[in-house]
Amino acid sequence: MMVTATAKAKPAQTRTHLLAAAAEEMRQNGFRAASLDHILTQAGVTKGALYHHFRNKLELGYAVLEEVFRVQLLENWAHALEDASDPIDGLIQQVRQLAETATAESLQHGCPLNNLAQEMAGVEEGFRVRIERVFGDWRGLIASALEKGKSDGTVRVNLDSDKSALFITAVIEGSVGAAKNARDPAVLKSCFEGLEHYLLALRPRVSFRGSGARSAGTS
Amino acid sequence: MMVTATAKAKPAQTRTHLLAAAAEEMRQNGFRAASLDHILTQAGVTKGALYHHFRNKLELGYAVLEEVFRVQLLENWAHALEDASDPIDGLIQQVRQLAETATAESLQHGCPLNNLAQEMAGVEEGFRVRIERVFGDWRGLIASALEKGKSDGTVRVNLDSDKSALFITAVIEGSVGAAKNARDPAVLKSCFEGLEHYLLALRPRVSFRGSGARSAGTS
Repeated sequence: MMVTATAKAKPAQTRTHLLAAAAEEMRQNGFRAASLDHILTQAGVTKGALYHHFRNKLELGYAVLEEVFRVQLLENWAHALEDASDPIDGLIQQVRQLAETATAESLQHGCPLNNLAQEMAGVEEGFRVRIERVFGDWRGLIASALEKGKSDGTVRVNLDSDKSALFITAVIEGSVGAAKNARDPAVLKSCFEGLEHYLLALRPRVSFRGSGARSAGTS
Repeated sequence: MMVTATAKAKPAQTRTHLLAAAAEEMRQNGFRAASLDHILTQAGVTKGALYHHFRNKLELGYAVLEEVFRVQLLENWAHALEDASDPIDGLIQQVRQLAETATAESLQHGCPLNNLAQEMAGVEEGFRVRIERVFGDWRGLIASALEKGKSDGTVRVNLDSDKSALFITAVIEGSVGAAKNARDPAVLKSCFEGLEHYLLALRPRVSFRGSGARSAGTS
Protein backbone atom coordinates (compact mmCIF):
# COMPACT_ATOMS: atom_id res chain seq x y z
CA MET A 1 0.00 0.00 0.00
CA MET A 2 2.71 2.40 1.00
CA VAL A 3 4.64 1.64 -2.15
CA THR A 4 1.57 2.16 -4.31
CA ALA A 5 1.11 5.50 -2.64
CA THR A 6 4.74 6.35 -3.41
CA ALA A 7 4.29 5.24 -6.98
CA LYS A 8 1.25 7.49 -7.26
CA ALA A 9 3.09 10.38 -5.66
CA LYS A 10 5.85 10.21 -8.27
CA PRO A 11 4.28 8.25 -11.09
CA ALA A 12 6.38 9.85 -13.83
CA GLN A 13 9.59 9.09 -11.97
CA THR A 14 8.56 5.50 -11.30
CA ARG A 15 7.74 5.07 -14.96
CA THR A 16 11.13 6.50 -15.96
CA HIS A 17 12.94 4.15 -13.57
CA LEU A 18 11.00 1.18 -14.93
CA LEU A 19 11.79 2.12 -18.54
CA ALA A 20 15.49 2.58 -17.81
CA ALA A 21 15.76 -0.74 -15.97
CA ALA A 22 13.73 -2.56 -18.62
CA ALA A 23 15.83 -1.03 -21.42
CA GLU A 24 19.03 -2.25 -19.75
CA GLU A 25 17.57 -5.72 -19.19
CA MET A 26 16.39 -5.90 -22.81
CA ARG A 27 19.77 -4.70 -24.09
CA GLN A 28 21.40 -7.58 -22.28
CA ASN A 29 18.87 -10.38 -22.68
CA GLY A 30 16.45 -9.40 -25.41
CA PHE A 31 12.73 -9.30 -24.75
CA ARG A 32 11.56 -12.85 -24.10
CA ALA A 33 14.40 -13.73 -21.74
CA ALA A 34 14.11 -10.38 -19.92
CA SER A 35 13.27 -10.96 -16.26
CA LEU A 36 10.48 -8.81 -14.80
CA ASP A 37 11.78 -9.56 -11.32
CA HIS A 38 15.22 -8.29 -12.27
CA ILE A 39 13.73 -5.16 -13.82
CA LEU A 40 11.74 -4.48 -10.63
CA THR A 41 14.80 -4.96 -8.42
CA GLN A 42 16.91 -2.68 -10.60
CA ALA A 43 14.18 -0.03 -10.73
CA GLY A 44 13.42 -0.33 -7.01
CA VAL A 45 9.74 -0.70 -7.86
CA THR A 46 7.08 -3.23 -6.79
CA LYS A 47 5.09 -5.44 -9.11
CA GLY A 48 1.99 -3.43 -8.18
CA ALA A 49 3.61 -0.22 -9.35
CA LEU A 50 4.70 -1.91 -12.57
CA TYR A 51 1.15 -2.95 -13.39
CA HIS A 52 -0.03 0.53 -12.50
CA HIS A 53 2.03 1.81 -15.43
CA PHE A 54 2.01 -1.09 -17.90
CA ARG A 55 -0.72 -3.65 -18.45
CA ASN A 56 1.79 -6.44 -19.06
CA LYS A 57 5.36 -7.26 -20.09
CA LEU A 58 4.56 -6.72 -23.77
CA GLU A 59 3.34 -3.19 -23.14
CA LEU A 60 6.50 -2.47 -21.16
CA GLY A 61 8.55 -3.82 -24.08
CA TYR A 62 6.74 -1.60 -26.57
CA ALA A 63 7.34 1.43 -24.35
CA VAL A 64 11.08 0.66 -24.11
CA LEU A 65 11.23 0.38 -27.89
CA GLU A 66 9.38 3.61 -28.55
CA GLU A 67 10.45 5.79 -25.64
CA VAL A 68 14.05 4.63 -25.14
CA PHE A 69 15.58 2.81 -28.15
CA ARG A 70 13.70 4.87 -30.76
CA VAL A 71 14.45 8.20 -29.12
CA GLN A 72 18.15 7.43 -28.61
CA LEU A 73 18.63 6.27 -32.20
CA LEU A 74 16.78 9.13 -33.85
CA GLU A 75 18.25 11.87 -31.66
CA ASN A 76 21.73 10.54 -32.27
CA TRP A 77 21.33 10.46 -36.05
CA ALA A 78 19.37 13.71 -36.27
CA HIS A 79 22.18 15.54 -34.47
CA ALA A 80 24.86 13.92 -36.62
CA LEU A 81 23.10 14.98 -39.80
CA GLU A 82 22.18 18.47 -38.58
CA ASP A 83 25.70 19.23 -37.41
CA ALA A 84 27.31 18.25 -40.72
CA SER A 85 28.08 20.67 -43.53
CA ASP A 86 26.69 18.12 -45.98
CA PRO A 87 24.97 14.73 -45.65
CA ILE A 88 27.83 12.59 -46.97
CA ASP A 89 30.22 14.19 -44.50
CA GLY A 90 27.62 13.78 -41.76
CA LEU A 91 27.09 10.10 -42.50
CA ILE A 92 30.82 9.42 -42.71
CA GLN A 93 31.48 11.25 -39.43
CA GLN A 94 28.71 9.29 -37.76
CA VAL A 95 29.89 5.84 -38.88
CA ARG A 96 33.49 6.77 -38.03
CA GLN A 97 32.39 7.78 -34.55
CA LEU A 98 30.50 4.53 -34.12
CA ALA A 99 33.58 2.58 -35.19
CA GLU A 100 35.98 4.61 -33.05
CA THR A 101 33.94 4.39 -29.86
CA ALA A 102 33.20 0.67 -30.21
CA THR A 103 34.92 -1.66 -27.75
CA ALA A 104 34.70 -5.40 -27.24
CA GLU A 105 32.49 -4.62 -24.24
CA SER A 106 30.20 -2.18 -26.01
CA LEU A 107 29.81 -4.67 -28.87
CA GLN A 108 28.80 -7.50 -26.58
CA HIS A 109 25.10 -6.79 -26.96
CA GLY A 110 25.15 -5.06 -30.36
CA CYS A 111 22.30 -2.82 -31.50
CA PRO A 112 19.22 -3.22 -29.26
CA LEU A 113 16.85 -2.32 -32.10
CA ASN A 114 18.35 -4.91 -34.43
CA ASN A 115 18.39 -7.53 -31.67
CA LEU A 116 14.73 -6.88 -31.04
CA ALA A 117 13.96 -7.08 -34.76
CA GLN A 118 15.78 -10.40 -35.15
CA GLU A 119 14.20 -11.83 -32.01
CA MET A 120 10.63 -10.59 -32.29
CA ALA A 121 9.76 -9.76 -35.91
CA GLY A 122 8.98 -13.38 -36.73
CA VAL A 123 6.94 -14.13 -33.64
CA GLU A 124 5.13 -11.00 -32.43
CA GLU A 125 3.47 -8.79 -35.02
CA GLY A 126 2.97 -5.86 -32.64
CA PHE A 127 6.73 -5.61 -32.13
CA ARG A 128 7.46 -6.08 -35.82
CA VAL A 129 5.19 -3.21 -36.83
CA ARG A 130 6.59 -0.88 -34.15
CA ILE A 131 10.21 -1.77 -34.97
CA GLU A 132 9.50 -1.21 -38.66
CA ARG A 133 8.19 2.26 -37.82
CA VAL A 134 11.47 3.05 -36.05
CA PHE A 135 13.55 1.72 -38.94
CA GLY A 136 11.33 3.75 -41.29
CA ASP A 137 11.93 6.94 -39.27
CA TRP A 138 15.68 6.32 -39.26
CA ARG A 139 15.74 5.73 -43.01
CA GLY A 140 13.56 8.82 -43.44
CA LEU A 141 16.10 10.98 -41.59
CA ILE A 142 18.89 9.79 -43.86
CA ALA A 143 16.80 10.01 -47.04
CA SER A 144 15.78 13.60 -46.20
CA ALA A 145 19.40 14.57 -45.63
CA LEU A 146 20.37 13.00 -48.96
CA GLU A 147 17.52 14.84 -50.72
CA LYS A 148 18.73 18.09 -49.22
CA GLY A 149 22.22 17.21 -50.46
CA LYS A 150 20.83 16.72 -53.95
CA SER A 151 19.43 20.24 -54.00
CA ASP A 152 22.62 21.63 -52.45
CA GLY A 153 24.82 19.88 -55.02
CA THR A 154 26.63 17.66 -52.51
CA VAL A 155 24.85 14.45 -53.55
CA ARG A 156 24.42 13.22 -57.13
CA VAL A 157 20.98 14.11 -58.43
CA ASN A 158 20.21 10.69 -59.93
CA LEU A 159 20.40 8.98 -56.53
CA ASP A 160 17.32 7.18 -55.21
CA SER A 161 17.54 8.53 -51.66
CA ASP A 162 15.05 6.07 -50.18
CA LYS A 163 16.85 3.03 -51.61
CA SER A 164 20.19 4.47 -50.55
CA ALA A 165 18.97 5.12 -46.99
CA LEU A 166 17.67 1.55 -46.81
CA PHE A 167 21.01 0.18 -48.01
CA ILE A 168 22.99 2.35 -45.58
CA THR A 169 20.94 1.24 -42.56
CA ALA A 170 21.09 -2.42 -43.64
CA VAL A 171 24.89 -2.21 -43.97
CA ILE A 172 25.16 -0.58 -40.54
CA GLU A 173 23.02 -3.25 -38.87
CA GLY A 174 24.82 -6.06 -40.69
CA SER A 175 28.18 -4.61 -39.70
CA VAL A 176 27.25 -4.18 -36.05
CA GLY A 177 25.88 -7.72 -36.05
CA ALA A 178 29.11 -9.13 -37.51
CA ALA A 179 31.21 -7.16 -35.02
CA LYS A 180 28.99 -8.25 -32.15
CA ASN A 181 29.49 -11.91 -32.93
CA ALA A 182 33.20 -11.43 -33.54
CA ARG A 183 33.33 -9.32 -30.34
CA ASP A 184 35.86 -7.25 -32.28
CA PRO A 185 35.83 -3.50 -33.03
CA ALA A 186 38.21 -4.15 -35.96
CA VAL A 187 35.36 -5.98 -37.70
CA LEU A 188 33.16 -2.89 -37.37
CA LYS A 189 35.94 -0.62 -38.65
CA SER A 190 36.56 -2.87 -41.64
CA CYS A 191 32.88 -3.03 -42.62
CA PHE A 192 32.43 0.70 -42.15
CA GLU A 193 35.37 1.38 -44.48
CA GLY A 194 33.36 -0.46 -47.13
CA LEU A 195 30.37 1.72 -46.26
CA GLU A 196 32.50 4.88 -46.53
CA HIS A 197 33.48 3.94 -50.08
CA TYR A 198 29.82 3.53 -50.88
CA LEU A 199 29.02 6.92 -49.33
CA LEU A 200 31.80 8.71 -51.20
CA ALA A 201 30.41 7.33 -54.45
CA LEU A 202 27.15 9.18 -53.74
CA ARG A 203 28.85 12.51 -54.49
CA PRO A 204 28.27 14.14 -57.85
CA ARG A 205 30.84 13.04 -60.43
CA VAL A 206 31.86 16.67 -60.75
CA SER A 207 31.10 18.62 -57.61
CA PHE A 208 29.03 21.76 -58.05
CA ARG A 209 30.86 23.19 -55.06
CA GLY A 210 34.25 23.01 -56.76
CA SER A 211 35.57 20.35 -54.39
CA GLY A 212 36.09 17.67 -56.99
CA ALA A 213 38.84 16.07 -54.91
CA ARG A 214 36.16 14.72 -52.58
CA SER A 215 35.15 12.02 -54.99
CA ALA A 216 38.70 10.68 -55.26
CA GLY A 217 39.75 7.53 -53.52
CA THR A 218 36.46 5.72 -53.89
CA SER A 219 37.91 2.59 -55.44
CA MET B 1 12.44 -49.28 -22.08
CA MET B 2 11.01 -50.22 -25.44
CA VAL B 3 11.61 -46.73 -26.74
CA THR B 4 15.20 -46.76 -25.53
CA ALA B 5 15.68 -50.04 -27.33
CA THR B 6 14.23 -48.51 -30.50
CA ALA B 7 16.47 -45.50 -30.12
CA LYS B 8 19.45 -47.81 -29.80
CA ALA B 9 18.36 -49.86 -32.79
CA LYS B 10 18.31 -46.79 -35.03
CA PRO B 11 20.39 -44.28 -33.12
CA ALA B 12 21.59 -42.41 -36.22
CA GLN B 13 18.03 -42.00 -37.48
CA THR B 14 16.78 -40.81 -34.10
CA ARG B 15 19.58 -38.29 -33.96
CA THR B 16 18.74 -37.04 -37.47
CA HIS B 17 15.07 -36.64 -36.55
CA LEU B 18 16.00 -34.75 -33.40
CA LEU B 19 18.31 -32.42 -35.30
CA ALA B 20 15.71 -31.73 -37.99
CA ALA B 21 12.98 -31.00 -35.45
CA ALA B 22 15.29 -28.86 -33.32
CA ALA B 23 16.49 -26.93 -36.39
CA GLU B 24 12.90 -26.12 -37.34
CA GLU B 25 12.04 -25.10 -33.79
CA MET B 26 15.15 -22.88 -33.59
CA ARG B 27 14.38 -21.34 -36.99
CA GLN B 28 11.00 -20.28 -35.67
CA ASN B 29 11.73 -19.39 -32.06
CA GLY B 30 15.46 -19.00 -31.65
CA PHE B 31 17.37 -21.02 -29.07
CA ARG B 32 16.23 -19.88 -25.64
CA ALA B 33 12.52 -19.92 -26.46
CA ALA B 34 12.81 -23.27 -28.27
CA SER B 35 10.62 -25.86 -26.57
CA LEU B 36 12.22 -29.26 -25.93
CA ASP B 37 8.76 -30.79 -25.57
CA HIS B 38 7.78 -29.48 -28.98
CA ILE B 39 11.00 -30.79 -30.51
CA LEU B 40 10.37 -34.24 -29.02
CA THR B 41 6.78 -34.31 -30.31
CA GLN B 42 7.84 -33.22 -33.78
CA ALA B 43 10.68 -35.75 -33.85
CA GLY B 44 8.53 -38.52 -32.37
CA VAL B 45 11.24 -39.18 -29.80
CA THR B 46 11.14 -39.54 -26.01
CA LYS B 47 13.07 -37.43 -23.54
CA GLY B 48 15.16 -40.50 -22.69
CA ALA B 49 16.23 -40.86 -26.31
CA LEU B 50 17.06 -37.16 -26.48
CA TYR B 51 19.40 -37.41 -23.51
CA HIS B 52 20.93 -40.53 -24.99
CA HIS B 53 22.14 -38.36 -27.89
CA PHE B 54 22.65 -34.93 -26.31
CA ARG B 55 23.68 -34.14 -22.77
CA ASN B 56 21.42 -31.09 -22.59
CA LYS B 57 19.59 -28.46 -24.63
CA LEU B 58 22.79 -26.49 -25.19
CA GLU B 59 24.54 -29.47 -26.76
CA LEU B 60 21.52 -30.03 -29.00
CA GLY B 61 21.67 -26.36 -30.01
CA TYR B 62 25.38 -26.58 -30.86
CA ALA B 63 24.71 -29.68 -32.97
CA VAL B 64 21.93 -27.92 -34.90
CA LEU B 65 24.27 -25.01 -35.57
CA GLU B 66 27.16 -27.16 -36.74
CA GLU B 67 25.40 -30.05 -38.42
CA VAL B 68 22.38 -28.29 -39.93
CA PHE B 69 22.74 -24.50 -40.27
CA ARG B 70 26.48 -24.58 -40.99
CA VAL B 71 26.25 -27.39 -43.53
CA GLN B 72 23.30 -25.82 -45.38
CA LEU B 73 24.96 -22.41 -45.60
CA LEU B 74 28.36 -23.63 -46.71
CA GLU B 75 27.06 -26.20 -49.22
CA ASN B 76 24.79 -23.59 -50.73
CA TRP B 77 27.57 -21.04 -51.17
CA ALA B 78 30.23 -23.54 -52.20
CA HIS B 79 28.01 -24.76 -55.03
CA ALA B 80 27.14 -21.23 -56.14
CA LEU B 81 30.81 -20.28 -56.31
CA GLU B 82 31.95 -23.53 -57.92
CA ASP B 83 29.29 -23.41 -60.63
CA ALA B 84 30.12 -19.85 -61.68
CA SER B 85 32.50 -18.94 -64.49
CA ASP B 86 34.03 -16.29 -62.22
CA PRO B 87 33.52 -15.24 -58.58
CA ILE B 88 31.75 -11.93 -59.26
CA ASP B 89 29.24 -13.67 -61.53
CA GLY B 90 28.85 -16.40 -58.92
CA LEU B 91 28.20 -13.96 -56.10
CA ILE B 92 25.75 -11.92 -58.18
CA GLN B 93 23.87 -15.04 -59.26
CA GLN B 94 23.67 -16.19 -55.67
CA VAL B 95 22.33 -12.93 -54.24
CA ARG B 96 19.88 -12.65 -57.16
CA GLN B 97 18.62 -16.13 -56.44
CA LEU B 98 18.21 -15.30 -52.76
CA ALA B 99 16.23 -12.18 -53.68
CA GLU B 100 14.11 -13.93 -56.30
CA THR B 101 13.16 -16.88 -54.14
CA ALA B 102 12.35 -14.77 -51.07
CA THR B 103 8.69 -14.47 -50.09
CA ALA B 104 6.99 -12.75 -47.17
CA GLU B 105 6.63 -16.22 -45.62
CA SER B 106 10.24 -17.28 -46.17
CA LEU B 107 11.41 -13.96 -44.73
CA GLN B 108 9.38 -14.34 -41.57
CA HIS B 109 12.20 -15.96 -39.66
CA GLY B 110 15.16 -14.53 -41.60
CA CYS B 111 18.59 -16.17 -41.49
CA PRO B 112 18.82 -18.75 -38.67
CA LEU B 113 22.56 -18.21 -38.31
CA ASN B 114 22.18 -14.47 -37.93
CA ASN B 115 19.24 -14.86 -35.54
CA LEU B 116 21.34 -17.15 -33.40
CA ALA B 117 24.25 -14.71 -33.50
CA GLN B 118 22.07 -11.78 -32.44
CA GLU B 119 20.35 -13.82 -29.73
CA MET B 120 23.24 -15.77 -28.25
CA ALA B 121 26.56 -14.03 -28.98
CA GLY B 122 26.17 -11.66 -26.05
CA VAL B 123 25.04 -14.23 -23.52
CA GLU B 124 26.60 -17.63 -24.26
CA GLU B 125 30.25 -17.73 -25.23
CA GLY B 126 30.12 -21.32 -26.53
CA PHE B 127 27.54 -20.32 -29.11
CA ARG B 128 29.39 -17.14 -30.03
CA VAL B 129 32.64 -19.00 -30.74
CA ARG B 130 30.87 -21.69 -32.79
CA ILE B 131 28.83 -19.14 -34.77
CA GLU B 132 31.99 -17.13 -35.42
CA ARG B 133 33.62 -20.26 -36.84
CA VAL B 134 30.71 -20.68 -39.26
CA PHE B 135 30.86 -17.02 -40.29
CA GLY B 136 34.61 -17.42 -40.71
CA ASP B 137 34.16 -20.46 -42.96
CA TRP B 138 31.58 -18.62 -45.06
CA ARG B 139 33.85 -15.58 -45.41
CA GLY B 140 36.71 -17.94 -46.23
CA LEU B 141 34.77 -19.49 -49.11
CA ILE B 142 34.09 -16.07 -50.61
CA ALA B 143 37.62 -14.79 -49.99
CA SER B 144 39.11 -17.87 -51.68
CA ALA B 145 36.87 -17.39 -54.70
CA LEU B 146 37.90 -13.72 -54.91
CA GLU B 147 41.59 -14.68 -54.65
CA LYS B 148 41.13 -17.16 -57.48
CA GLY B 149 39.44 -14.38 -59.45
CA LYS B 150 42.47 -12.16 -58.86
CA SER B 151 44.78 -14.73 -60.44
CA ASP B 152 42.29 -15.37 -63.27
CA GLY B 153 41.96 -11.66 -64.01
CA THR B 154 38.26 -11.41 -63.15
CA VAL B 155 38.82 -9.52 -59.88
CA ARG B 156 41.00 -6.46 -59.45
CA VAL B 157 44.36 -7.43 -58.02
CA ASN B 158 44.50 -4.68 -55.37
CA LEU B 159 41.40 -6.02 -53.60
CA ASP B 160 41.69 -7.13 -49.97
CA SER B 161 39.69 -10.35 -50.37
CA ASP B 162 39.26 -10.98 -46.65
CA LYS B 163 37.89 -7.49 -46.00
CA SER B 164 35.68 -7.72 -49.05
CA ALA B 165 34.28 -11.11 -47.98
CA LEU B 166 33.55 -9.69 -44.53
CA PHE B 167 31.74 -6.71 -46.06
CA ILE B 168 29.73 -8.91 -48.45
CA THR B 169 28.52 -11.23 -45.68
CA ALA B 170 27.70 -8.27 -43.39
CA VAL B 171 25.64 -6.64 -46.17
CA ILE B 172 23.81 -9.89 -46.81
CA GLU B 173 22.95 -10.40 -43.14
CA GLY B 174 21.95 -6.75 -42.74
CA SER B 175 19.76 -6.96 -45.83
CA VAL B 176 18.04 -10.18 -44.78
CA GLY B 177 17.48 -8.67 -41.34
CA ALA B 178 15.90 -5.52 -42.80
CA ALA B 179 13.71 -7.60 -45.14
CA LYS B 180 12.71 -9.88 -42.28
CA ASN B 181 11.46 -7.00 -40.18
CA ALA B 182 9.76 -5.37 -43.16
CA ARG B 183 8.37 -8.84 -44.10
CA ASP B 184 8.93 -7.64 -47.65
CA PRO B 185 10.95 -9.28 -50.46
CA ALA B 186 11.20 -5.88 -52.19
CA VAL B 187 13.42 -4.71 -49.31
CA LEU B 188 15.79 -7.62 -49.94
CA LYS B 189 15.84 -6.92 -53.69
CA SER B 190 16.57 -3.25 -53.12
CA CYS B 191 19.45 -3.93 -50.71
CA PHE B 192 20.91 -6.60 -52.96
CA GLU B 193 20.93 -4.18 -55.89
CA GLY B 194 23.23 -2.04 -53.77
CA LEU B 195 25.37 -5.10 -53.11
CA GLU B 196 25.48 -5.89 -56.85
CA HIS B 197 26.91 -2.44 -57.55
CA TYR B 198 29.55 -3.10 -54.95
CA LEU B 199 30.36 -6.49 -56.51
CA LEU B 200 30.60 -5.08 -60.03
CA ALA B 201 33.12 -2.53 -58.77
CA LEU B 202 35.42 -5.42 -57.73
CA ARG B 203 36.19 -6.14 -61.39
CA PRO B 204 39.48 -4.93 -62.83
CA ARG B 205 39.17 -1.43 -64.27
CA VAL B 206 40.24 -2.90 -67.62
CA SER B 207 39.36 -6.55 -67.85
CA PHE B 208 42.18 -8.91 -68.75
CA ARG B 209 39.60 -11.10 -70.42
CA GLY B 210 38.65 -8.48 -72.97
CA SER B 211 35.17 -8.03 -71.55
CA GLY B 212 35.55 -4.41 -70.53
CA ALA B 213 31.81 -3.86 -70.75
CA ARG B 214 31.40 -5.80 -67.51
CA SER B 215 32.64 -2.94 -65.41
CA ALA B 216 30.11 -0.52 -66.89
CA GLY B 217 27.04 0.51 -64.96
CA THR B 218 28.62 0.42 -61.54
CA SER B 219 27.52 3.88 -60.54
